[in-house]
Order: sequence, then structure tokens, then C-alpha cells
Amino acid sequence: MTSTGTSALAERLSDSLLIANVRLPDGTRVDVSISGGRIAAIGADLPRTPGVAIEHGMGALLLPGFVEGHTHLDKTHWGLDWYRNEVGPKLTDRIENERHWRAASGHDAGKQSLALARAFLQLGTTRLRTHVDVDTDAGLRHLEGVLATRETLRDVLDMQIVAFPQSGLLGRPGTDMLLDAALSAGADVLGALDPALIDGDPVASLDRTFEIAQRHHKPIDIHLHEPGEVGAFTLGLLLDRVAALGMQGQVVVSHAFCLGALPERERDALLARLADLRVALLTTAPPATPVPPLKICIERGVSIFGGNDGVRDTWTPYGSPDMLERAMLIAMRFGLRRDDDLALAFDCVSTYAARACGFDDYGLRPGARADLVLVDADTVAHALVARPPRRLVVAHGKIVARDGQGVGY
Amino acid sequence: MTSTGTSALAERLSDSLLIANVRLPDGTRVDVSISGGRIAAIGADLPRTPGVAIEHGMGALLLPGFVEGHTHLDKTHWGLDWYRNEVGPKLTDRIENERHWRAASGHDAGKQSLALARAFLQLGTTRLRTHVDVDTDAGLRHLEGVLATRETLRDVLDMQIVAFPQSGLLGRPGTDMLLDAALSAGADVLGALDPALIDGDPVASLDRTFEIAQRHHKPIDIHLHEPGEVGAFTLGLLLDRVAALGMQGQVVVSHAFCLGALPERERDALLARLADLRVALLTTAPPATPVPPLKICIERGVSIFGGNDGVRDTWTPYGSPDMLERAMLIAMRFGLRRDDDLALAFDCVSTYAARACGFDDYGLRPGARADLVLVDADTVAHALVARPPRRLVVAHGKIVARDGQGVGY
Repeated sequence: MTSTGTSALAERLSDSLLIANVRLPDGTRVDVSISGGRIAAIGADLPRTPGVAIEHGMGALLLPGFVEGHTHLDKTHWGLDWYRNEVGPKLTDRIENERHWRAASGHDAGKQSLALARAFLQLGTTRLRTHVDVDTDAGLRHLEGVLATRETLRDVLDMQIVAFPQSGLLGRPGTDMLLDAALSAGADVLGALDPALIDGDPVASLDRTFEIAQRHHKPIDIHLHEPGEVGAFTLGLLLDRVAALGMQGQVVVSHAFCLGALPERERDALLARLADLRVALLTTAPPATPVPPLKICIERGVSIFGGNDGVRDTWTPYGSPDMLERAMLIAMRFGLRRDDDLALAFDCVSTYAARACGFDDYGLRPGARADLVLVDADTVAHALVARPPRRLVVAHGKIVARDGQGVGY
Repeated sequence: MTSTGTSALAERLSDSLLIANVRLPDGTRVDVSISGGRIAAIGADLPRTPGVAIEHGMGALLLPGFVEGHTHLDKTHWGLDWYRNEVGPKLTDRIENERHWRAASGHDAGKQSLALARAFLQLGTTRLRTHVDVDTDAGLRHLEGVLATRETLRDVLDMQIVAFPQSGLLGRPGTDMLLDAALSAGADVLGALDPALIDGDPVASLDRTFEIAQRHHKPIDIHLHEPGEVGAFTLGLLLDRVAALGMQGQVVVSHAFCLGALPERERDALLARLADLRVALLTTAPPATPVPPLKICIERGVSIFGGNDGVRDTWTPYGSPDMLERAMLIAMRFGLRRDDDLALAFDCVSTYAARACGFDDYGLRPGARADLVLVDADTVAHALVARPPRRLVVAHGKIVARDGQGVGY
């Protein structure tokens, strides 16, 4: 064997890991072998290879790495002094307050997004979609910060960046050019915001959004807070464009509060179109706002998944980088109590979110990227309500947290 | 000085404690001196007394001991293997499932209530109202277990016990005799349950409940899940009896979902009567069910407070002995975001709950019982969303937890 061969073998071994004695969500006891950042095998009593490190799971529950489907890393005060919220109740109050804060506070979107992304990672999130403010005040400053964070964590956290016109698209001239630039600079998805109630012209706003997305061959993820009938109207216009432009499977509607407050027949007609056009819904499951009906969406074949929205920013004091907490809040929001139903809420921050966002190679299966979380819990439902410290977090085959503490990243 | 005098001095000193350098919720830096289980003084730079132990608060936030206004210690699986919930969706499904489980499982209400009560205490709850099942299957078995728990923790946890006819009052003959016996055996409050929808005869059920309560000179805390108009009807009958029998200030209506789903005029008329008769409302703030409007209740002078309901039992997988989490869930349920509003949610599990349940000598003031919690948080709102480990918990002047770990109880 040449020295090159020895070195390659050593590298292969150091890139390998065996996690022994864990339980799958169905209760089966297995080992998991990892090589080259991927799951090589899952099964009982896998062979030990000399030179490959072993982690002893001691019967802990094995979960796939969590997926945060909708957050705003760039805005967070995570780790800073508490932001005292004295903001008015309207959406426009919050946008205005934030724009003022953004200009005056000297907020560092790079440092803050990195702090929060690390917290997500240490708690088991290995894939994450973040909306990043792009407007005529901030320009691409927030985007640059979040791109730097993505680069810093590129070996362990799979991050999708949505270029998000937080101040609206039509109202502030030049925003479209900035979105254009953001997509050229590395944003993966085009964001949008309330085409009727913020932009004031749903047809023009949606047309502009779809035009930019198509030019860049990028998917769309739109914040649609618009309630009831006006939200339904906007959603219908959006679905028309998905069909006309062939963007099936490339659009997410975030929030979609309107679907929580429509007459059943109207709601069901929209759900049928959403399923047909493979337009997915993101819910943060806020308890004080109407929300799309989770189990009905699943039954009708509508892709639905979960996220935090902001975490401790000028909008909200809430949110947590622990996606088990978000899954619990989703389950509570929909009145779920049975174990099988709580498992659906977990799917919203794992399998369903990965599928809707297009995160590839996901799951507890050979060939998938080795993104794994071990917790001391009897079942998935137990993990949601207890949210125990993460015994081990593996991201892309690398150990990034152990016994609740970050390791190396 | 005689040896008796020395011993009395030593006892007084050992019963005293100075907590130095903490922050009140309004930000003021103070010390707190404790003697004989009570707060002796709160103020800046209190004098150090030789022989009196000092705890260094290091600027931590000082909160009053938390108050759990409604739980079911006797039913919990806390600390046991996970209970797999496969229960049907109706209230009667849950009652039947639990009755079967209670008969078949060999559940030890004494051991379980002690485990959960200790968890509450270690997380800062020093006053607690628990409903205890009394029915013709269980007899007084659950009550005896919870009475033993109360006795075990009597020096540190102030526990009110509600004798609760979980299987209904009228449907199972002999239940009234058992409630009678429970109140004689040490229960503090008479419970009741859905006079129309469970008992099937709201007038007879309420009359029986009030008759038993009056005979024992005990207050009432009724579970009223009845929705909308039927709940409003029952609530009206209940208020008639409060007025007729002079039980102002002695009745709590738990849940009161009906007040979340009535036309405003009808709701407001009931709120006015509730305020006038000093009948309090308990809410667990479930996100999937209509709930009494928190801020409107407060504005109208209706006493409203918070609790978990069950914690990990056959009814629900949710619930936590951390009342900061319950306060956060209450704040989220009502869409509260401003710091001042989150402080109201904290009041629901502290000041408001103590007042509504009649826990005396409560609060951060000289003369009050020394029930204190120290957490590393900037503000009350921060404490709710971060729910940090308890740096120190003092119950009736005794240290019962330090750095998140129980001490001595």
C-alpha cells in the first residue's frame, strides 16, 4: 500500500462514525453508520470497523436533523440585551418601527444571524430557510451578513436564503432592482409580501414578483398575512400565475391566514388548487390568528410545514431555535393530543419542511445526508413536550453538539 | 444571656437570610431580608447582620414565587414511562378512557402527585391549587395520596385541594357523599363539572353543588367546558346562585370557554355580572379552543388567572411544572407582544392567581411570605420567553432550589 493509499484510508476512517444502540421513532433498536457525511447503513448490530469512532447512543431516540422552514435570522436580538417591545398593534406599525430601528440601531445582521444560526444548529436544526430583509434603506446589508453566516457554517448547516422585500415591493422605487441584485448575489428564493394590503396593487405586485423569479429561475416564498376574503382573492391571483407560468412545485405561501377564516367551500376550492399546483403552505401556528387547518391540508394533499418566523426581534419576543418547541406549539395550536398526531407536528419541522423547501437527501435512510439528533425520550411525542437536552447532534456527518453543548462550530 | 436565649437567637439567625443585589421587575436594584419565613425588608443596601447567611443575587431578576391556579397532580405520569395517547376526541371519550385506566393501571396518586409537586416547587411554584378526582370508582384514594403529598411538602408548598367529581356529580349515585367526605377529610374547595353537558341537569347539578359547599362553608371551583350558548346558560344559572346565596368572592369558573364564543353584548353582560359578584375565571389559554378575552376581562374588573390543567396524563401530553412556560403560552394565546402585556400574563400565574385563589400574604413586600424566585433575565417578558434555570428558589423562607437543582425537599 502506498503512502497515498494509507492517507486516503485514514481520511475515510476519520470521516466515518458509528452510532451504536439508538431507537428509531417506531421503537426499533438500531445502529447507524456514517461515512463521507452520509448515512451508510441503519440496522441492528452493524459491524464495527477498526479505526472508526463509536458513539454510544445508550438507547436514545434517533431523530432526523430538524428543518426550520421560515425564520428571519438577520433581525434577531439573540444573545443581546432584551429588546423592550412597545410597538403598536398593526402590521404597518411593526414595519415602520423596524425600519426606524434598522436605521438607528447599528444592528449587525452578520453577527446576529451567526449567533442565532449556531443556536439552531446546537439544538439540532441542520437545514434552515431564512428570509432576509432587502429594502431601499438596508440595501443588501442584511443579505451580505447572512451570506457570510452561511459561508461560516457551510459544512454543517444547509441554509436557503429568501430575498425578502420587508418594506413592500412597489411602494419604494428601486426595491425590484435590489431583489434582482440579491438573487444575483446568492439568494436562493424570491420573497414577497401582501400584494394587496401592503403593495396596494395585487396584480402589479404579483406580476413583478413572478417576472423577477422567472428571470432568475428561482422559486418564490411569499408572506401572505392578508386575512379572509382579501387573502383568498390574492391567493387566487397567485395560483393563476403559478399555473400560467408553469411554476408548479416552486412556490411556498407563508402564513396564509386567509385559509383559516373562509367558508369551507371556498377554502376547500383553494386547497384543491394548492394541491394540484403543488404550492406549499408554511405555518408558524400562531395561537391568536386563524391558520390553515393542518390535518385537512394533509388529507387533501396540500404540502404544509412549520417554522418560527422571527426569533426575539422587533416584531416578536417569542420564537426559539429549538424546533421541538415549534413542533409542540404547532401540535397545541391544532388541538392535537394523540401520539400519532404529535408525530405529524414533528413532520412539519422535519420531513414535510425538507420536501417543501427542496432540501435534498433528507431523512433517516442510507444515502441521506447524515443529519441526526439523539434525545432521551421514549417517543416523538415525548420529545416534543419534554424538549430534552440534545445528547448528540450530527450535521453532515460531523458532531456539532454533545450533551446540550456546541462542539466546534 | 441564658442558654435558652442563645438557642433562640441561633434559631432566629438560622431562620434568617439576606439576598443581596437583585433586581425588581421595575429594574430597581435591592436586597431582600428574610426572617421567620417572611420578607422582613426590601431595599437598597440593607444592613448585614452577623450570623445571617447571605445569598448573592448578582443582579438576577427577582420574581415572587409562582402560583399554579389549576392542575391535576393526582393524574400525572410525570417521571414514569411515556403514556401513549390513543384517546378519542370527545370529552366523554377522555373521561371514559381515564376511568378505565384508573381502575386498571394501579396508578399511585400519592407517589405521582409528590413527584410533580416537587417539580413545580423546584421551578419556583410555591402556591398551587390542584383538583383531585373523587368518584365512585376511585373513592377517596386519589385524595388520600394528595393529602399525603401536601403533608410532606407543608413547610414549603401551599397547596389547595379541590374535591373534583371527574365522572360527574349526578350520574353516579354516591358521588355527593364522597364529595362530602372529601371536604371533611381535608379538601379546601368543592369542585364541579359541566352541569348541563355532563350531568344533564344544570339546575339540579348546581343546586347540589352549592348545597354541599354551603354546608361545609367551602368555596367552589367549577370546570365549565360547555361551549357558546349552553355554557352561557349554565354560567347564568351559576351566577344566580352566587347572588342568592351570598357567595360573592368564593367561586372560580375554570375554563369558561363559552366566554370566548359569544356575541359581544351577551359576553359583556356576563362579564359585568362576574365582576359584580367577584366570580373569578381560570384559563389555561388553550390555543385550539375559544377562551375568555384576557385583556377585556382585566379592563372590566373580572378576576382572571392561569394554570396548566393536567400535566402529562391520560388527557393531555402537554403541561409543564414551569409556570413561566404557562405564562408564555397565555401571552401567545392572546397575541401579546409588548413587554407590558407579557407582564400581565405573568400576573396570571402570580399576583392574580394568588388573589383569586385566596392565597394570603403573597407578593414582593415586607410582611409577605418569603416565596421568591431568582432568574437570569433582563425583564419579566424576557423571563417568560427564555425560561432560564432558576438560580434560586426560596419557599417560605427556605432555599428549595439552587441553579436549577432541588435542595432538600
